Amino acid sequence: MDWRRVLFGRPLKDREETGRKVIVWQGLAVLAPDALSSVAYGTQEILIVLYAAGAAALWYSLPISAVIVLLLAFLVYNYRQIITAYPNGGGAYVIGRDTIGPWTGVLAGTALLIDYTLTVAVSVTAGVAALVSAFPMLLPWTVPISVAFTLFIMIVNLRGVKESAQLFMGPTYLFIIMVLIMAVWGLIKPDALAKPYHAFIAPSPLAIVAPLLILRAFSSGSSALTGVEAISNGVPIFKDPAPRRARATLLLLGLFLGAMFLGTSLVAYRYGITPNNQVTVLQQIAAHLFGRGVFFYLLSFVTMAILAIAANTSFTGFPQLASIMARDQWMPRMFLSRGDRLVYQNGILVLGSFAILLIIVFHGSTDALIPLYAVGVYMSFTIAMASLVKKRWREPDAPNRTLTIVTGTLGALLTAAVVVIAIITKFTEGAWIVVVAIPLLILSFRATRRHYQMVADNLRLNDLTIKPVAKKLVVVVPLASINRMTMATISTALSMNPDELIALHISTSREREHIVMERWNRWNPDPRIKFVSIQSQYRSVLRPMVRYIDHLTNLFAPGRVLVVIPELVVGKPWQNLLHNHMAFALEAILVFRREVSVTVVPYHLPDKPDAGGEVKT
Amino acid sequence: MDWRRVLFGRPLKDREETGRKVIVWQGLAVLAPDALSSVAYGTQEILIVLYAAGAAALWYSLPISAVIVLLLAFLVYNYRQIITAYPNGGGAYVIGRDTIGPWTGVLAGTALLIDYTLTVAVSVTAGVAALVSAFPMLLPWTVPISVAFTLFIMIVNLRGVKESAQLFMGPTYLFIIMVLIMAVWGLIKPDALAKPYHAFIAPSPLAIVAPLLILRAFSSGSSALTGVEAISNGVPIFKDPAPRRARATLLLLGLFLGAMFLGTSLVAYRYGITPNNQVTVLQQIAAHLFGRGVFFYLLSFVTMAILAIAANTSFTGFPQLASIMARDQWMPRMFLSRGDRLVYQNGILVLGSFAILLIIVFHGSTDALIPLYAVGVYMSFTIAMASLVKKRWREPDAPNRTLTIVTGTLGALLTAAVVVIAIITKFTEGAWIVVVAIPLLILSFRATRRHYQMVADNLRLNDLTIKPVAKKLVVVVPLASINRMTMATISTALSMNPDELIALHISTSREREHIVMERWNRWNPDPRIKFVSIQSQYRSVLRPMVRYIDHLTNLFAPGRVLVVIPELVVGKPWQNLLHNHMAFALEAILVFRREVSVTVVPYHLPDKPDAGGEVKT
Repeated sequence: MDWRRVLFGRPLKDREETGRKVIVWQGLAVLAPDALSSVAYGTQEILIVLYAAGAAALWYSLPISAVIVLLLAFLVYNYRQIITAYPNGGGAYVIGRDTIGPWTGVLAGTALLIDYTLTVAVSVTAGVAALVSAFPMLLPWTVPISVAFTLFIMIVNLRGVKESAQLFMGPTYLFIIMVLIMAVWGLIKPDALAKPYHAFIAPSPLAIVAPLLILRAFSSGSSALTGVEAISNGVPIFKDPAPRRARATLLLLGLFLGAMFLGTSLVAYRYGITPNNQVTVLQQIAAHLFGRGVFFYLLSFVTMAILAIAANTSFTGFPQLASIMARDQWMPRMFLSRGDRLVYQNGILVLGSFAILLIIVFHGSTDALIPLYAVGVYMSFTIAMASLVKKRWREPDAPNRTLTIVTGTLGALLTAAVVVIAIITKFTEGAWIVVVAIPLLILSFRATRRHYQMVADNLRLNDLTIKPVAKKLVVVVPLASINRMTMATISTALSMNPDELIALHISTSREREHIVMERWNRWNPDPRIKFVSIQSQYRSVLRPMVRYIDHLTNLFAPGRVLVVIPELVVGKPWQNLLHNHMAFALEAILVFRREVSVTVVPYHLPDKPDAGGEVKT
Repeated sequence: MDWRRVLFGRPLKDREETGRKVIVWQGLAVLAPDALSSVAYGTQEILIVLYAAGAAALWYSLPISAVIVLLLAFLVYNYRQIITAYPNGGGAYVIGRDTIGPWTGVLAGTALLIDYTLTVAVSVTAGVAALVSAFPMLLPWTVPISVAFTLFIMIVNLRGVKESAQLFMGPTYLFIIMVLIMAVWGLIKPDALAKPYHAFIAPSPLAIVAPLLILRAFSSGSSALTGVEAISNGVPIFKDPAPRRARATLLLLGLFLGAMFLGTSLVAYRYGITPNNQVTVLQQIAAHLFGRGVFFYLLSFVTMAILAIAANTSFTGFPQLASIMARDQWMPRMFLSRGDRLVYQNGILVLGSFAILLIIVFHGSTDALIPLYAVGVYMSFTIAMASLVKKRWREPDAPNRTLTIVTGTLGALLTAAVVVIAIITKFTEGAWIVVVAIPLLILSFRATRRHYQMVADNLRLNDLTIKPVAKKLVVVVPLASINRMTMATISTALSMNPDELIALHISTSREREHIVMERWNRWNPDPRIKFVSIQSQYRSVLRPMVRYIDHLTNLFAPGRVLVVIPELVVGKPWQNLLHNHMAFALEAILVFRREVSVTVVPYHLPDKPDAGGEVKT
């Protein structure tokens, strides 16, 4: 159908795959926005927690930011090694599975799948919320706009990864450049009102802060690192040599992210910026440096865009991860199939649908979901780094072994701490949902795998000396009247050379039965056919038909009963409303019977040009 | 399934039909509420229009009411004869069709079907609006309550007509009794403040009213008679002798309706009641007569109930009329089928769905729909009476011929006047919708009938000397791997004794192809089978499969190609998500090919007890 081409582009052949892959700067545009958008609120999250203890406490944002950047360095260092070890992607899931055990992998995978879904809902609605606060007349349309934008990202991703890279590159790089300009100029601009540089060294003696508050500020600020894992999951989207390109992208991401985050924190401290509800920390910095002019408004707009685009990262991560977990039979087989545009379209569709569901259920205000967020990613961070440490422990000759073990252990401990703090401090705010959802999902993954294994056990044919044998064939042709369709159907039935051929008429009145029988006898199409007529007591034709077929199945066991039934094919879709589609209705019932098959014989009306349906995968 | 029994009751046999029919006092409870509820606003509608010309003008409500009651008498007199002439129901549609012509009948039927749908939406929301004004905290739930109530009436009607009679009898008769008490006591109660009886005779000299205003008041007030036609459409719901019972019901309805409406108008005039937004005219009368006590609140409650129950009448009228029009092939065949509970369940479901759609689209405030209302019913009144006049004109010996012709002609003229006035004065308020909808529906009915006739022409088999002949049979068995399911499918295929038997493997990789081919050669199940393997370039398995089948169809023409494909039947519904259902997907595509049939061979996993689907329909 033509609209599919317009929306998604022409079908791609397998050998066109290479041309669909991305290089470093495109990969960054696809996989970085999630992490980059975290900069838009990372520093702010820290300041909000600290500000509760007074303005003097804000100094602690500096060491906290430093620790977070150090953690970022650990993550980048470790994940680059994971990419080398698992060049087909899968990140924490694969390394957890192979190093610690299948259930550890499933735990990491589950946490990430939940996180990707939340990311889409939260990013889109955060972007739309920013848009709405700029144009308040859009307020009543928050949910429809969010849904429409999610659908838009979905369609772009169904076209292909490369298309999404091209589309979202502009805002991504513009955001990086603008924040870096602010970080550099904010630190070196001569300004009498700014704090002197020596104030950065030690806290004011007034700042007495409970250690728990510092931990909470650290935990909140660490949301700045969510999204760093996406590259390790999406290695296969890169052109060969994919692992090398993925590693380079991750390094670049780490450098940009670290500089932007640390810069923002330092500049915010230098200008004594305090969090408030109206203007974000980034906007306050822009206003300080350049006034409320073009830069300020452009930054606001680009921030809005990067928030919304962050959802795009999930649309790469989720389908890749789901396909890897489906290959291991934890998830339905459909996540393995790649459609016309060489993307895992079912993963994209399922992710989009769940995100839209979340947006609708939460009426477009997904603040409630933000607490849930960090738990999943940090769980996967912990598993990934712990697995890498275990792996290296067993490899005495690995390069940089000691450094990896030290940074990996420290990183795993830090990220585990974030998980524990986030679950404890935000349990009632919503973290309990993740704590409930993860085990439920894992149970359903287990059920899926068990089912596939049960099916495989049942279908397995080891003994190839067993051969299929023909059985006695009993063909039943249901008929409502004697017409050309009846003739075509009986002709097909006769072609099968059945052992028994029964024409079955179910009538709802004596008169009708009489007419059909009389006409049948006059026609007398073939001596091999036995005519059976049954009266229905319940107006329903299907019920007595099925009962009679059950009777035949018992009578002729172990033979096979085959129902051959015509389906009238009409020329225009609306005309389907005018017919009862008995063939499909009967088939839907009889599929639950053993030893009964249904053959649907299409009967075409002549107004139908032999166009036929195009093949949808 | 058990929930169906709980909701709708056990299936009924054909011969239980008699026990499902209603007698006069039950029929009145089912078919009268629509007309009776009109009393709740008929007088009020007249007073609102007249009050625009001052309080003195309200006198004109008396002659206007008298004319409306006269029209009611004409309607009852004429429709009783229509019932006798058409004991199978169908009212205006049938008599219009038989007397004037098929398109006149269709016009009447279309107008009534639209009217029935509007009645459901308007009555339910009017009832819920009354409830909400009593309990304002329900305001935000207006739409859900209306939808829930519509679903409730739908379910009651799916159980059967008798059930709806039993359920809605109480409020119906209580309403009749209370309004009659008010009418009688309101006229005879000695009261110094009431107008003297001689003031009823002639208007005050101050009352100068434009004739157009009187016409508009008459047109608005005539909405009191909507619903009178329902009995003539629903004759078959009565126990034998159905026409006699239906006639008695209509007479009773006419007497009650006339007395209630005229009484209300007279009492309203006697107490000088003026319309206002807070309290209805009926409530004002009750307050005048009995104070704001028990009677007042009971009346308010019963009025609310009768408004909502009015919808029930449509749930009898619409399915009956739709079934009669479907028998004439104007409407889809599905409206003809009666389900387990001997009701036309598809008519009930379609009516309910459209009404719910209207309620949702108009956000539960269906005032906008009220203007559309009278147009449809009065169109059918005009057609019914004009048809009866024409019929009697050609029957010189019919009893009461002259009286029928006089009252019918007068009645038809009056009702035609109401249609014209309503369309003109309410065109921009919404009557245009009916003016647009009626032709559109008629066009779709015409298309339906043409389609059925085209199908019948194509299927007709006049020459019974033509016999079905067996054709060459080419069977294709698609297989993804060699397993027990493959074996069962090939066994079925072998039972058909095909002329050609092809095992078709579509592979997405060279390695896979190699494995399957090698295993096939080792197995070598039957020398008659030809193994064909095709490489897919597009990952899709269906596309190359269909292309190969098209190729076979051309190659072996005029033989028949039969695709025999297994469908894995799982034990639990959720497990269907884990499989791709290739059989049904292939069938949905191949049904559009000529000379290709599909046989679906169910393969049951052993965890499935041989329960099987219960037969629905």
